[in-house]
Amino acid sequence: MMNLAGVHLGEEVSLRGIRDIVFPEHNDHVPHIAIDIGGSLAKVAYFTRQGVYARSGAVTPTGASPELSMSEATLRARAPNGHADDMRPPSRTESPNGQSGGRLNFVKFETEKMTECIAFIRALFDEQESAHAALHPDGPPCPRILLATGGGAHKFHDRLVEELGVTIYKYDEMECLVKGLNFLVKYVPREVFAYREDEPIQFEETPPAGAYPYMLVNIGSGVSILKVTGENECERVSGTSLGGGTYWGLMSMIAGAQNPTGATPSFDDMLQLSTTGDNTHVDMLVGDIYGMDYGKIGLKSTTIASTFGKVFKMNADDRAATSIHDVSRSLLYMVSNNIGQIAYLNARAHGITRIYFGGYFICGHPITMHTLSYAINFWSKGSTRALFLRHEGYLGAVGAFLQHQ
Amino acid sequence: MMNLAGVHLGEEVSLRGIRDIVFPEHNDHVPHIAIDIGGSLAKVAYFTRQGVYARSGAVTPTGASPELSMSEATLRARAPNGHADDMRPPSRTESPNGQSGGRLNFVKFETEKMTECIAFIRALFDEQESAHAALHPDGPPCPRILLATGGGAHKFHDRLVEELGVTIYKYDEMECLVKGLNFLVKYVPREVFAYREDEPIQFEETPPAGAYPYMLVNIGSGVSILKVTGENECERVSGTSLGGGTYWGLMSMIAGAQNPTGATPSFDDMLQLSTTGDNTHVDMLVGDIYGMDYGKIGLKSTTIASTFGKVFKMNADDRAATSIHDVSRSLLYMVSNNIGQIAYLNARAHGITRIYFGGYFICGHPITMHTLSYAINFWSKGSTRALFLRHEGYLGAVGAFLQHQ
Repeated sequence: MMNLAGVHLGEEVSLRGIRDIVFPEHNDHVPHIAIDIGGSLAKVAYFTRQGVYARSGAVTPTGASPELSMSEATLRARAPNGHADDMRPPSRTESPNGQSGGRLNFVKFETEKMTECIAFIRALFDEQESAHAALHPDGPPCPRILLATGGGAHKFHDRLVEELGVTIYKYDEMECLVKGLNFLVKYVPREVFAYREDEPIQFEETPPAGAYPYMLVNIGSGVSILKVTGENECERVSGTSLGGGTYWGLMSMIAGAQNPTGATPSFDDMLQLSTTGDNTHVDMLVGDIYGMDYGKIGLKSTTIASTFGKVFKMNADDRAATSIHDVSRSLLYMVSNNIGQIAYLNARAHGITRIYFGGYFICGHPITMHTLSYAINFWSKGSTRALFLRHEGYLGAVGAFLQHQ
Repeated sequence: MMNLAGVHLGEEVSLRGIRDIVFPEHNDHVPHIAIDIGGSLAKVAYFTRQGVYARSGAVTPTGASPELSMSEATLRARAPNGHADDMRPPSRTESPNGQSGGRLNFVKFETEKMTECIAFIRALFDEQESAHAALHPDGPPCPRILLATGGGAHKFHDRLVEELGVTIYKYDEMECLVKGLNFLVKYVPREVFAYREDEPIQFEETPPAGAYPYMLVNIGSGVSILKVTGENECERVSGTSLGGGTYWGLMSMIAGAQNPTGATPSFDDMLQLSTTGDNTHVDMLVGDIYGMDYGKIGLKSTTIASTFGKVFKMNADDRAATSIHDVSRSLLYMVSNNIGQIAYLNARAHGITRIYFGGYFICGHPITMHTLSYAINFWSKGSTRALFLRHEGYLGAVGAFLQHQ
């Protein structure tokens, strides 16, 4: 069991751009590493003890993709009144026993690059074993335990056992998502926030005022919608195949076709492209059809009537010259709006007014969070709340990590 | 007012591949033409009297797009037990007064080709006027009345008045859709049917056993979802921008990029491509992630987990070689599944168990109808019924036509 006393966000952003989570009172050895293997990404969470071995640097995550999660800069830029102080985690308390606890670290790999992921995990285990042996030269060897979840926990099970020589405990994906979410929501201050483009980030209380039921919408390659009714009670009530994989897939197909080398942008770059794109070049708005608002039914002239609705009408030259920036923005709106709408409709069906959005697709991207928030607010007429997390992509990995007793 | 006695489907398929609707008892002059101008297509409905002037041929619809609606061949091929007889409309009854009534005819144009549409309507009015003048040489001139609906009724209003010299009556789009649907459902036998890929078409009773409330999901460039609670009572309760325009737009962008000339398939050809496509080449299935079913939450290994989820992982050559057939099938599933899901969620929210699908996107395409039906059946666990219409693309035009008193 992890000692959760005083858990808080790490003060520094790691190499991968996401904050570690500090467990200042946990000084026991943690022999396990957690992995959540999705359709597109494998997310790894591992614990390092302060002063026992270096928490970063010693093991270089070769092949690990750069982190995309909410950067300090993004959060800081949107802090209330620009006060960077508001973003600072609570001061770290030295543990009474003189030890300084440890940290939970995060790193991700593309599922296609499982070889690199396995090499990284092996190096971690090797390092843990050396450190453990140095401290306990006469003790039993350090066990190698991998806590695995996500679809890939099944698909890659045999390969992981064979190549890592580890004991694998498999955990249900939905249970891990909820366990990870409940931990972050209850124990990590300044983890959860509401987001609006025209308003600074509003952090939620820790633990939150409201409890169950709530909804978790996890946006990875595909989307799962879970109704959570208790500490370990959840049901997958819906989902959609229009998720991150749809955005990444269509973007890479269109960008690749425009590029003579066929090269496509990275996850990061795709999202970056959207920030300077104008979707109205490709989307058909209510005003494009009506020449005005359709006030009688409450549709503004600027409402998107048809995603990509202008493209079919273009001549071949204009179509070929379509900016990938515009395409990125349109696709991002398409996927985010649609998820927001389906999430709202499910929340309504289940009488739920609080929706947490998780999953790697979000990765702290302002346009995505704004669109999801806007959709929830629009459809629910303000009665339902959209909430985000700093570690949104690691809910399953955190949950798997915490499964170990 | 139109005389609706004995209304039935025309025995022959018109030039444009869609059956006319016969009004055997209506022998009065009908001076008006109806038009429903959407974001992508303008749909025209006009009445011709038998024996007064030729119902087709005299006016050639230059520039009119070939009809896509449910072809006789498609319906016939899916008739119960292959008996073509079952598809035949009731025998036509000669009108007691010796006149033979008339027919409502249908034709569509791309909204981008409004010039051709206007020329067609002008020729129709000219022909009507000549015929009327021949019958009533001393009477007043035949009025030219255009009954217009759809967003383009506003956008193109001034141009239509100027170029056609007509009186325009504008009608609300949603009211016309519902009026058109109610007429087709109540008065035209063998117009409405349920569809399943593995079962022949099942025609509904005329008029239907159930009445209000029902839901109309109209799929044009975008999608409107209407709750209909009475003869002329409806509310637009929802909609989505992922509609026909999204399919046509993404298809033309991807197909255009693959073709050195930039040329793109027509509406017809895009749908045809899907019939030989395999979406599993681009979509990520549950089995691709899990290596098996995710039985605990009821997901089969063949369920689509992520639309286009395989594309990002492809190397540049494989991605460039992706079959446009596969893309068409995947996009068609994406749009149809998503509309089916949102339609179901709205029907559930409003306690509705009967959903009519209209709009030009469907155009009698078996895969589209199967996907919509399957989605409604899947999500509602069989409790909600998906219904289709032969004249699905002309609900608004029919409704506008019937507005005239």
